[in-house]
Parts: sequence; C-alpha cells; structure tokens
Amino acid sequence: MLLEMAGPPNTLRELGLIEQIRRDFSSSSEAFSSSSKAVTLGIGDDCAILRPAAGSEVLVTTDFTLEGRHFRRDLHPPESVGHRCLARGLSDLAAMGATPVAAFLSLALPGTMLAESAGRDWIARFFSGLRTLGEMHRVPLAGGDTSESPGGNNGLIFADIVLVGAAPKGEAIRRSGGVAGDAVYVTGQLGGAAAELAAILRRQRRILNVATTEGHPHLFPEPRLDVGESLLRRRLANACIDVSDGLSTDLAHLCRASGVCAEIEQAALPIHPLALKLGTAAALLAALHGGEDYELLFTAPASVPIPSSLAGVPITRIGSLKNRRAGRPLVTMLAPDGSRAELQPAGWEHFSGISSEISSQIRPGTAKSRKKKPH
Amino acid sequence: MLLEMAGPPNTLRELGLIEQIRRDFSSSSEAFSSSSKAVTLGIGDDCAILRPAAGSEVLVTTDFTLEGRHFRRDLHPPESVGHRCLARGLSDLAAMGATPVAAFLSLALPGTMLAESAGRDWIARFFSGLRTLGEMHRVPLAGGDTSESPGGNNGLIFADIVLVGAAPKGEAIRRSGGVAGDAVYVTGQLGGAAAELAAILRRQRRILNVATTEGHPHLFPEPRLDVGESLLRRRLANACIDVSDGLSTDLAHLCRASGVCAEIEQAALPIHPLALKLGTAAALLAALHGGEDYELLFTAPASVPIPSSLAGVPITRIGSLKNRRAGRPLVTMLAPDGSRAELQPAGWEHFSGISSEISSQIRPGTAKSRKKKPH
Repeated sequence: MLLEMAGPPNTLRELGLIEQIRRDFSSSSEAFSSSSKAVTLGIGDDCAILRPAAGSEVLVTTDFTLEGRHFRRDLHPPESVGHRCLARGLSDLAAMGATPVAAFLSLALPGTMLAESAGRDWIARFFSGLRTLGEMHRVPLAGGDTSESPGGNNGLIFADIVLVGAAPKGEAIRRSGGVAGDAVYVTGQLGGAAAELAAILRRQRRILNVATTEGHPHLFPEPRLDVGESLLRRRLANACIDVSDGLSTDLAHLCRASGVCAEIEQAALPIHPLALKLGTAAALLAALHGGEDYELLFTAPASVPIPSSLAGVPITRIGSLKNRRAGRPLVTMLAPDGSRAELQPAGWEHFSGISSEISSQIRPGTAKSRKKKPH
Repeated sequence: MLLEMAGPPNTLRELGLIEQIRRDFSSSSEAFSSSSKAVTLGIGDDCAILRPAAGSEVLVTTDFTLEGRHFRRDLHPPESVGHRCLARGLSDLAAMGATPVAAFLSLALPGTMLAESAGRDWIARFFSGLRTLGEMHRVPLAGGDTSESPGGNNGLIFADIVLVGAAPKGEAIRRSGGVAGDAVYVTGQLGGAAAELAAILRRQRRILNVATTEGHPHLFPEPRLDVGESLLRRRLANACIDVSDGLSTDLAHLCRASGVCAEIEQAALPIHPLALKLGTAAALLAALHGGEDYELLFTAPASVPIPSSLAGVPITRIGSLKNRRAGRPLVTMLAPDGSRAELQPAGWEHFSGISSEISSQIRPGTAKSRKKKPH
C-alpha cells in the first residue's frame, strides 16, 4: 500500500493533512519528472514503477529513523528530523557513487499528533525538511506506507526511508575493492556531528528554528552525492564507504570487506571546527568515533593523483591500506610522536535515549569502554 | 547501513543471533542466485545492487508490520508474523503482475528480546516464517536495517518490508486501467482472514504451533504472485489491485483510479468457509469489508474469456464496471432480492490493538459505523 493510513475512526478525519502532504510531494515529483524520467508511476498504486536508464543497475538501501533512538522530539527541530531521515539513505547511495532515483518513506505517527495542531505542525515541518533536501538532489518521494504508531498517546514516531539509485552496470564503488598500498582519503571534516549533538544534549533545549542548514553537521548533514558520482565517473576510487558509524568503525568495515589493514595518521585528520572547540582530546575522540558525519571514506591507488577538492568538497589523505598480516591490528593510528597503537572500532552508538551517556562519549577516556562489536 | 545493529553495550554481545540469521539468509540468497541473477550484491555494503532483466521496469512497495497494530506477540505465532510481513509486500507485486526480485527488511527489536532465550526464539521463528515464504517465491533478502526499538523493556517490535520486483516495460497492471463494461473478478475466497482473526481474538490465546500453513487465511495468507504474473503474461486484465483493506475499500480505490463505478452481485461473492461458519450476515460483512485476504481483484473486458482458474486458484466473476454518472454511487451492490444499495468503503482497520472492537466488527450491523475515509 502506498501512503495509506490505517487508524481508528477518530483520527481518520485528520488524515487530510497526510493527503495534502502526499499531493504536495506528488506535484513536486512532477516538477522533477523532466529531469527524473526514471519514475514512471509514483504514489497511488500498489507499487511505484521506476525505469532506470538502460545499462544501469539498481541500488537499494533502507534506514530507520526512530524517535528516542535517532532523534528526540524535545530537542531536534522537525525539519532536521526529516532532513536527517533522507540524508542517511542518500549518503548510502553516495558511498557507492550512485545517482538517486526515488525515495520511499514509511512513517508511523501517534494518533494524537494528527489530532492536535502542534502535532500537525510537527509533521508539516518534518516533510518540509525532507522535501528541501530531496529537491536539492532531485529525488522524488515515490511512495511508502503510513500507519498510526501503536501505544496510543505514548506512541512514538518511527520512519524508515528507502532510497533507490542507479549506477552504470558493474561500476558502483564497493567497500570491498580496497587493496594494500591504496591511500585512504576522507571528504570534508570529521567530528562535527558528534560535537553539535553533544552541545544540544548539554543545553537540553530544542533549537526552535535554524536560519540556515549550513554549519549544522548534526542537524543538517550534507550527503556527498556529487563527490560519490564524481569518484565513480572518473574511476578514482577502489573502495568507498560513508562515515555514518564513526571513522574507526567504518574504516574497520572497509578493511574487513577488502581483506586488508589500514594505518591512519592522527596529524592528518581533518577535524571539524565545532569539535576543535571541545579541546584536543575530545576533538580527537569525536573525529575518530563520532558518527553521522556522512562524509565519504575512500581508497585509491597511491599513484593516482586525487584533487584537493571534488565537487567543492575538500579531500584529505589520512593514511594508507596495508597487507593483512598475523598480529597486525585491522586499523592502526600513527600518533604525532611517531608511536603506533591499535585503533579499536568505537563508533558512535547513534542516539541511545540516555542523553548523558551519549554526551559523556566525547569526554576523553570514556569512549573505549563503549566498544562497538565489530560486524 | 545494511543489517547493522546499533544498541547499548549490554545487548551488543547478543547480536551474534542477528549475525547468524543474516548469514543464513545470505547463504539462502546464494542458493537462489542461480535463479535470481538479479541480485548482484546482497547484504554487507552500503546498498544492495540489483540488475533487473533488460527491458524490464522496477516496481517498489513498502509495508509496515507494527506490533499492537498488525499483530500481537501474545496471539500470533512468530512464523505467522514473519510470513505476513513478507506476504503484504509480495501481494502488492502480485497486484501489478510483477515478478519479485528482492526483499529488504528493516527490523527494530526491544533490547530485552535479544537478551532472553524466549526473545531469541521468537526472532528465529519470525525469520523462519519469512524465509519459508521467501523461498517458496524465490525472493532473497538482500538487505535492510536493524535497530534496538526505543522504550526499553516496554519496547515494541516494528518491521518495514520493502519488495522490489520487475515487469516488462509498460506492462505492469495498474489500478487505473479499468473501463466501463469490464467484468470484475476476484481470486480465491473472501472473508477468511477476518474470520480467522475474529476466532483468534475470541480465544485470546496464542496458537503455539501451526502444523501447516494451509487453511489459515489470516495467519498464513497466500500472495497470488502466479495469478498476477499469468494475468500480465496473457494480457487478460485491464486493472488489478490486491484485497488488503477489504473488497469494499479496494474496489473503491480501483474505481476512483479508473474513473468508473462498479456494481457487484452479492450472490456471486466467493465467501470463505471459515467466514460462512459465522452465519450469513457476519459472513457477508467479512467478505465485503474484511481485509488482509490478499486475493486479487481485477477487471477485464467482458468479451475476453477468463478461465475458471489461473495457476490453480479459482477465479470468480463478481460484477462489472459502469460509467461514472452524477448521483451514481462509486460501488453498488445488487442483493439477491434484486434491490441495489450503495456499498460504502468500510475496510478492515487492520489490527487496532483494541481486540474487542475488531472482534465486534464481524457482528452484523457494526461495520458501517466504522467507515474508513476514502482516499
């Protein structure tokens, strides 16, 4: 079912809002249709129909956005929740160099939100954030599902975003293509999202309105679609992944998939100014383990010249891939004093609901005790 | 992210189960890969890569399965929850005549389920039900997302299933293709799912084990993929929709999309034996408004001979499409005494959590008071 709402009778009369949003999106899909011929049939049938260009393959990714886990209604502006929901999926496409074709949103809302004007306002602003980012990247919302969330008045908001993209056959950039000797690069800057989240959690107050989405790496991360497409088109990268769980975790994923080890240089890490404000030790932890930066981490043969920026985004070389060898850690970090130590995956655990725990993550010395199981 | 679990440290050690299931599915995907060359890259990268056959278009549908809304942990066997989760998406593909290519499952689970053996058993049985149906229709699980559901010990299970299918370009059967003069057909029998659900709700006891999935129209509905593919291949149908919300609601959807009206004959309705056991009046309400039968409702020119069964499933002619005319109701029902009355959409509201309310739905006279807003 596409954007159909099943709910008890008392909320049904409020569903006009959902219908309205659906229509807004349908018309914005039409606005895109000249550039996005790939969506043949959008919202309103049992399935959407997509027609990717001949010679392309289809990429699919799905990502949850759960209240109390990925956002808090009392702290995040609704536009940010909508933006981040879509950004998570777009970033997965970017990591493979794919071009977005269409998004699908499954959204469960507490019935009370539809009955109250504050709730309806929240929903409209959520969709506004999602639509603004979608329009920027020409991604129509082609379908999904809606439902009243269980739990009555205490019901929570859950969203699941599906992104469908396209890439020329056989050319999508995988995690598994890295080879020993490759240089390791990262786009933009690291640790900004963790630093902004920590600041929000410390304030414990919702930012009501954000004048611009720029400079808000947690609230409004920028998926690096143009960089990913450029890496694919110019065949620069051997392997790529997005930094969603944190550099330490995502680099370990890439190494495991590629069957190699990596060494990164601490001094080379491009640390976000918001993280630097936290002090040197906390900034380093945010850059290494803070997730949700949605930058791209890629590898390329050391002999291939990589421009200092791609699609306007700075590119920094942060290390290299090594052969796997008995006793060699998966990821090693070279400190400024020349010493080497294993870098354990200790990725940001997203939004656990225990805000103080998350907030404390950026204090030096605590991150290692919250190791994430490698997988 | 594909099947990655973010959760607090104390549950991380339990994630081995999820990993195990993931591997089971990966290997079963490989088992399918000879027949399902369309999945180039499954679980384990930022996106899955699909390669539908040349000349085909891609169909996408997403469907929620929410605890307390679509199922109850105390009443539904876990295999049924997994089966129904996948069946909902497969049925949407069937309604358009598409062939399934891959499924993606986003699954949020309470942390306590991973920590307790009863919970782990539930999860394994859920996946078993999903896998059994997937194998029957050769649909690999190619990715998804997992998360701990918010709410701690009181957290609920949420799933969102995404189905990707393929159909020859321009040939997917839409809701909107019906024309006045078409005969209206339905596959199988109606009202069985509502009748079985009512029986379960009256018993208020979980069926622990179901020996066979046959004869359980609510617990183990059979998506009509073979019928849908046959309708498409033989170009028999002008329009098609699946009966997920109930005949009255879904026929109204088809009429609205096609710009026509419909008249159905009460005496022609193929009513499920489980519904007939409820008595004549309740049986009729279950057949007209009971949802989740997942039969196909399609229209074809009256001049086209439609076989009495397709892919082993009986086909029944239940009425015809008429021109839209001022004052003519969208859907009319011709009673055995020759009288005609408007058939209001009063589709089954899925699983509202208020079991007695749902149960009372099949008692004569109550359904009309719970009209579903047409959309």
